[in-house]
Amino acid sequence: MTHAPLFPTDEFRARVARAQSAMHTAGLDALLLTTAPEIFYFTGFLTRFWESPTRPWFLVLPAHGDPVAVIPSIGAHLMARGWITDIRTWRSPDYADDGVSLLAGVLRDLVPSGGRIGLPSGGETHLRMPLSDWQTLQDQLPDRVFGPDAGIMRRLRMVKSEAEIALIRRACEIAYRAFDRVPEIAAEGTPLSTVFRRFQILCLEEGADWVPYLAGGAAPGGYGDVISPADDRPLAAGDVMMLDTGLVRDGYFCDFDRNWSIGPPSPEVAEAHARLIEATWAGFNCARVGATAAEVFHAMDRIVSGGTGGGDAGRLGHGLGMQLTEPPSLIPADDTVLEPGMVLTLEPGIDLGDGRIMVHEENIVLREGGAEWLSAPQGPEIRVIG
Amino acid sequence: MTHAPLFPTDEFRARVARAQSAMHTAGLDALLLTTAPEIFYFTGFLTRFWESPTRPWFLVLPAHGDPVAVIPSIGAHLMARGWITDIRTWRSPDYADDGVSLLAGVLRDLVPSGGRIGLPSGGETHLRMPLSDWQTLQDQLPDRVFGPDAGIMRRLRMVKSEAEIALIRRACEIAYRAFDRVPEIAAEGTPLSTVFRRFQILCLEEGADWVPYLAGGAAPGGYGDVISPADDRPLAAGDVMMLDTGLVRDGYFCDFDRNWSIGPPSPEVAEAHARLIEATWAGFNCARVGATAAEVFHAMDRIVSGGTGGGDAGRLGHGLGMQLTEPPSLIPADDTVLEPGMVLTLEPGIDLGDGRIMVHEENIVLREGGAEWLSAPQGPEIRVIG
Repeated sequence: MTHAPLFPTDEFRARVARAQSAMHTAGLDALLLTTAPEIFYFTGFLTRFWESPTRPWFLVLPAHGDPVAVIPSIGAHLMARGWITDIRTWRSPDYADDGVSLLAGVLRDLVPSGGRIGLPSGGETHLRMPLSDWQTLQDQLPDRVFGPDAGIMRRLRMVKSEAEIALIRRACEIAYRAFDRVPEIAAEGTPLSTVFRRFQILCLEEGADWVPYLAGGAAPGGYGDVISPADDRPLAAGDVMMLDTGLVRDGYFCDFDRNWSIGPPSPEVAEAHARLIEATWAGFNCARVGATAAEVFHAMDRIVSGGTGGGDAGRLGHGLGMQLTEPPSLIPADDTVLEPGMVLTLEPGIDLGDGRIMVHEENIVLREGGAEWLSAPQGPEIRVIG
Repeated sequence: MTHAPLFPTDEFRARVARAQSAMHTAGLDALLLTTAPEIFYFTGFLTRFWESPTRPWFLVLPAHGDPVAVIPSIGAHLMARGWITDIRTWRSPDYADDGVSLLAGVLRDLVPSGGRIGLPSGGETHLRMPLSDWQTLQDQLPDRVFGPDAGIMRRLRMVKSEAEIALIRRACEIAYRAFDRVPEIAAEGTPLSTVFRRFQILCLEEGADWVPYLAGGAAPGGYGDVISPADDRPLAAGDVMMLDTGLVRDGYFCDFDRNWSIGPPSPEVAEAHARLIEATWAGFNCARVGATAAEVFHAMDRIVSGGTGGGDAGRLGHGLGMQLTEPPSLIPADDTVLEPGMVLTLEPGIDLGDGRIMVHEENIVLREGGAEWLSAPQGPEIRVIG
């Protein structure tokens, strides 16, 4: 985080204008937003304070004019440092009325009677406010119609600006340097939990603001899953270790992984790794403007599973940006047409049997001429430690 | 995270029994839970994968019998390592039906027609599933009644077991050691953003699994707020620097801070720090079994504001455990009666004028005989760097 704002005010105004144009088409008089990335998207309000679930935060985007922040007073100082000027606050937590009446008043002013208020309601969204307050809000505004946002936030956020792409690229570069230093911190005998701690240190040393996500595994000839926390088992010859990180710099994530063989890889592991890289390139080559997310899935799936449809992960990649995972999903059912500026992960996985899997992941951005790597891609040979 | 489970199965069974007893009193036939701490509480399912907002996760606690996990297949391997045996999975994301029908089927089996299903709905809670799926679920079960959980999860989670207290204490000890090493990483001229990176490294070196939360500030004679990210301004003589961390070990947080004067403190800063410590001790001495959260607030508020009611933070402390902040809140309106096993932060703040504040924070646990420190308490003299 530098002193200068991450994005010029013009970029926020352009985001607002695109949203309002889509709202006009959808017949929406306001958007009501409650989560960190949604509010960051329009305001630049960036804080790790979202880790505290206590207080609700609201942003109202009207059909015309600038967004209105309806937030706890603890956030007023930081919000006022950005471009948003209409900031209404209350002292939260307030057990009698935790911002609900304040929010209802703002909506009453900005949305005409009978008007429609859209909330992100589809896949990968949630409403970050208590259910009881959500009911109270609707009760206080019986003449306004609450409903889905018609997918507006999903569509807007899927296409990144050049400034956003630059931030994601920088996060990828930090992770890339950290991955290259893994032989400094991991060797036969090192407990995986120690590797996890030391790898996060590498990420911070290389420039991460923080490391919200680190997963992985290490086990003989492949790991059991990709979401377990690290255990204290020492790395042993024949293990395949995988580290998958979502580190953040200036509010934007990378999300990619690397695999290592502890000692020389078995032929099976070497072949599986090469096939994962082959699948990643197939995804990369398929990921062109006008192709669909489903087509990129099938390009990779043909190589890793012979076209049988992927494994327990349920998908072979996804969007990426202010969140570790964002729409679209690389699954057969996702017919999202790829556009310039979309940032994707390519994440093929192979089932090696006996409860063992291997996964690989890279990050790309869609350009007019095709995909472009954000993470410098791994070669077919698995990295070896020791 | 070690190989051994964090808690014996008996502890989970005891939690389930307490919940079911409270459900019986409240006339609830099931609890439906969707967030990380709620699911961790009953299952021990611990993963950083919650960072991905894509997939919904569900746990159903029936009136009798063990909980049923209704989760994406990507989590089946990890869930099966714990004590939960009834695990229903689907391959998520599924755009046609992302677990909703599977969940509805489980609820139909476990809850009689006309039965009541409780969800955490009050302050500090949210429903972690898409609004549209929430509507679909209710539509699929027109003969079941969805409503609040009668505050059951709030009351259960506020009182920690000895095993939980030990984990919070260990997190506090890690942070304490990291705070003591701050002079190694911060000096006049060090940018605050560098201090933030290095401090997270210290936390990891001292044993944190990860560092989800770090906030703070540094400015002449006091800082502007306590939620902003670090900027690149170098520390200067006369600054007051504050670091406030919520680090995690084995799924449990600490949450306390320390202040430093860069160079000798001004009399105003020295006095303010001493008063914060005095207020913290007043909170500590007031925090006895049978006292209320409000009384602890007033004990501190009398000293920091003369009883005028606190500042923008809205409260002077809160609960702590699987989340950085949990109920209760130390505010005038919180009449929670303190019980043995409650873990609290004491977090008085002082307004120094000209947009400058100072805050101090410690962690305590309630015992039969009074409060006990979890963070070794800071003395009245502010720490000095340089």
